[in-house]
Amino acid sequence: MAKKVKTAITPTREEDYPEWYQQIVKASDLAERSTVRGCMVIKPWGYALWENIQREMDDLFKSTGVKNAYFPLFIPLSFLEKEAEHVEGFAKECAVVTHHRLEQGPEGGLIPGGKLTEPLVVRPTSETIIGESFSRWVKSYRDLPLLINQWANVVRWEMRTRIFLRTSEFLWQEGHTVHASAEEAKERTRLMLDVYARTAEEYLAMPVIKGSKSAAERFPGAVDTQCIEAMMQDRKALQAGTSHFLGQNFAKASGIRYQTADETEDFAWTTSWGASTRLIGGLIMTHGDDDGLAVPPRVAPTHVAILPIAHKPEDRQKVLAYCDQLAQALRSQYYHHRPLVVEIDDRDIGGARGWEWIKKGVPVRLEIGPRDMANDAVFMGRRDKGHKEKAAMPREQFIAEIGALLDDIQANLFDRARAFRHAHTHTIDDMVKFTEFFTPQNSDKPEIHGGFALSHWCGAAECENKIKEDLTVTIRCLPYDMQDEEGQCICCGEPSSQRVVFAKAY
Amino acid sequence: MAKKVKTAITPTREEDYPEWYQQIVKASDLAERSTVRGCMVIKPWGYALWENIQREMDDLFKSTGVKNAYFPLFIPLSFLEKEAEHVEGFAKECAVVTHHRLEQGPEGGLIPGGKLTEPLVVRPTSETIIGESFSRWVKSYRDLPLLINQWANVVRWEMRTRIFLRTSEFLWQEGHTVHASAEEAKERTRLMLDVYARTAEEYLAMPVIKGSKSAAERFPGAVDTQCIEAMMQDRKALQAGTSHFLGQNFAKASGIRYQTADETEDFAWTTSWGASTRLIGGLIMTHGDDDGLAVPPRVAPTHVAILPIAHKPEDRQKVLAYCDQLAQALRSQYYHHRPLVVEIDDRDIGGARGWEWIKKGVPVRLEIGPRDMANDAVFMGRRDKGHKEKAAMPREQFIAEIGALLDDIQANLFDRARAFRHAHTHTIDDMVKFTEFFTPQNSDKPEIHGGFALSHWCGAAECENKIKEDLTVTIRCLPYDMQDEEGQCICCGEPSSQRVVFAKAY
Repeated sequence: MAKKVKTAITPTREEDYPEWYQQIVKASDLAERSTVRGCMVIKPWGYALWENIQREMDDLFKSTGVKNAYFPLFIPLSFLEKEAEHVEGFAKECAVVTHHRLEQGPEGGLIPGGKLTEPLVVRPTSETIIGESFSRWVKSYRDLPLLINQWANVVRWEMRTRIFLRTSEFLWQEGHTVHASAEEAKERTRLMLDVYARTAEEYLAMPVIKGSKSAAERFPGAVDTQCIEAMMQDRKALQAGTSHFLGQNFAKASGIRYQTADETEDFAWTTSWGASTRLIGGLIMTHGDDDGLAVPPRVAPTHVAILPIAHKPEDRQKVLAYCDQLAQALRSQYYHHRPLVVEIDDRDIGGARGWEWIKKGVPVRLEIGPRDMANDAVFMGRRDKGHKEKAAMPREQFIAEIGALLDDIQANLFDRARAFRHAHTHTIDDMVKFTEFFTPQNSDKPEIHGGFALSHWCGAAECENKIKEDLTVTIRCLPYDMQDEEGQCICCGEPSSQRVVFAKAY
Repeated sequence: MAKKVKTAITPTREEDYPEWYQQIVKASDLAERSTVRGCMVIKPWGYALWENIQREMDDLFKSTGVKNAYFPLFIPLSFLEKEAEHVEGFAKECAVVTHHRLEQGPEGGLIPGGKLTEPLVVRPTSETIIGESFSRWVKSYRDLPLLINQWANVVRWEMRTRIFLRTSEFLWQEGHTVHASAEEAKERTRLMLDVYARTAEEYLAMPVIKGSKSAAERFPGAVDTQCIEAMMQDRKALQAGTSHFLGQNFAKASGIRYQTADETEDFAWTTSWGASTRLIGGLIMTHGDDDGLAVPPRVAPTHVAILPIAHKPEDRQKVLAYCDQLAQALRSQYYHHRPLVVEIDDRDIGGARGWEWIKKGVPVRLEIGPRDMANDAVFMGRRDKGHKEKAAMPREQFIAEIGALLDDIQANLFDRARAFRHAHTHTIDDMVKFTEFFTPQNSDKPEIHGGFALSHWCGAAECENKIKEDLTVTIRCLPYDMQDEEGQCICCGEPSSQRVVFAKAY
């Protein structure tokens, strides 16, 4: 039996993937569970990551003409009830405000007082409350398209929570647009899906598949739900962003009417689209390894961590000065339209210091001691390589090439994730193989089982349901970037014109 | 009687100040009242303004070592009860979540279901919930200072609401820091007050007085509450930001203990500080006039609005091309570390177009017609001048001087506001004059009454209370930038060593 390699995260992904996930969140100092049921505390490293993701997405939104606004946290119950499917979809997981003060209870402690005449729901999503404003803002075709986004917290009272992936409160953005035609609304739905795909691939280095959901997996009240799906390292799928074409459903529910160019009146066509702090969960499970997180440079809160090493007190000042100068030379540069962020960590905590930065996933670590100084060099480790693969490099060269180096790390993380997905995506046309693929415990080769199955589906809800019930496998999406192909449904054998992506999912 | 000048806002400030405020919020398209009780919808122009204020404040916070994080929206009732004064201060205005789903009621409609075992309060402020995390994060003096901020929504169930000034839900930031000594915590309290003062004066062009609150006006649970106070155009005071030294009160309530350098254990010293969307209310009432809003250039969502004017169809393309080129030349420049934002408004809506930009308060308007083109010129109006004071200017000169022009507008708005405050701040040492000052309806010169009274106060709560009850005038602060001076309390005549700022307030 091979000697077990010591890793910074225990257990390893192989040993216990869900527990590895909890441990990496803790070790990387991204976030923690709150004592408030199902809620999380996003710690500075995690929040800085979110701020970077936010800024990139926000720039992309604005470049398509979207403007930010802010709508109330509370939705009167009567608003939510306007769209029947919608309220049904969220009724089971709503936080409900029923009182507006605290008062002395009969036993001395405080109890809720001042009962509201109509309960208020803490927004799980804001179609209905935003629709109420839109119904007043939109009068004529001249007011369209109306392109609005809000950055907000939302609450869905989930029974089983997992940090970043499914929490009772989470942070997100929700875009809401209004159009004068179905075609234009459909185009916007797809445009925003493309923005999500770019965010995932170009910034988070997380390859995604774009497609439409089956009817069963649609957003409550939507005509079409489009999504990006990524493969995590346990080969499960993560839905990382959704864009909904809502038809006239919500316009009718909220009364969003407009006067057309030929002076008739019509209901408008709306879309909504959202992505959340769940993206951070996706990033962790795409790039994390058994030593901790690896943050793609384009969204990294810190690009370079400099660790001065001076065992003799007389060296300390000189080494610190050398590090300061190096940091200044780096900070005067930009990486992908943000100033390079460089941290000098001169805490006297021994080897734990280097490991902290590995666990946090900083893209580049520099160790600088008297010998490196004497050689006018840096001693450099990349987070996308093994933690022992460090090498000396002339200081000037490092300063000149830092941008290219970060680009290389960014590309390497993406390529690795794409290769992983490719290795675990299979075309399967046989129900026996399909079943085996998703039940590795029955197989003698567990390592090659699980992942994305590209299989034919006839379109019947019965087949979709049967597979879901038998194998807990769902249709992740009807992918766009795939050639039409005739075949037989993996479940019932009826004719099918397209393969869909089947997977177990978060 | 002089002929009444037509204004864009009706009524004028003089005619009905509170109603003028409502109308200017509407006319400038900043925000609107929501149908959800006491809540507001922040519209794109208002939200872009908030984003700019946020970004400037956030940069200032970070430059002092503060990091952002995010904590739960919900506070268990038991947490809030840990600090007795604190919970008492907020109990009367809390939104309380008591249920976690909706279910079918006996009469068919949905009703709250799934009663929570412990009610959750929607955060009115987060000292207690953040304290719970801090009690785990802080172990030793090496972990201090801990400097955290969050950008969040908070809810205080106000009975009388006014948009931006007092709403049930509002957006803010709340900073929370932990220190190893009282001195360091006091320094931080004051440092953050200085950040608020800089934000108000350098960005919002709103002069403020820095000082400490009297005991009666302190934040519930604080040892010292410091504030910035600004004078609005109705001469009332607006508290625009507060910074609290909390002593060890909240550390004791939340159990924030640390091991000192000499290995004993002690409770830590904490601070908290907050500023909110109320700042926008302050900006409106500092710079707005009877034609609408005036936005200081450093926080303006748009710096320059270009209005192409082409009555003949054959001119239109040429004028638009000229405007496009001009916009591009401007957009390639920075104004105060943000790219210049220029909007070309070529809507065909007649004179309403120019007035819309005046009402929104854009700093610079350019009207460009065939004649301006022929002269290689622009026709320019500044929002800090009268709407008719427009003048031609060579195009090249305008492009070269836009930065200086915006600086001039910024300085002019500040100077004007400071002169206004100066004109309405009086040293008063006599209770008859003091009473007259604050009861203009009893005077034959109403125009010179009201404002800030700098008067002596002995420090007794009785005197403070009597003045509050008799005149609805409160002590806004014990100002820092004022020389010590012996005198007699304006109310009781007892000795006093300092003048304080008395005013009616929002």
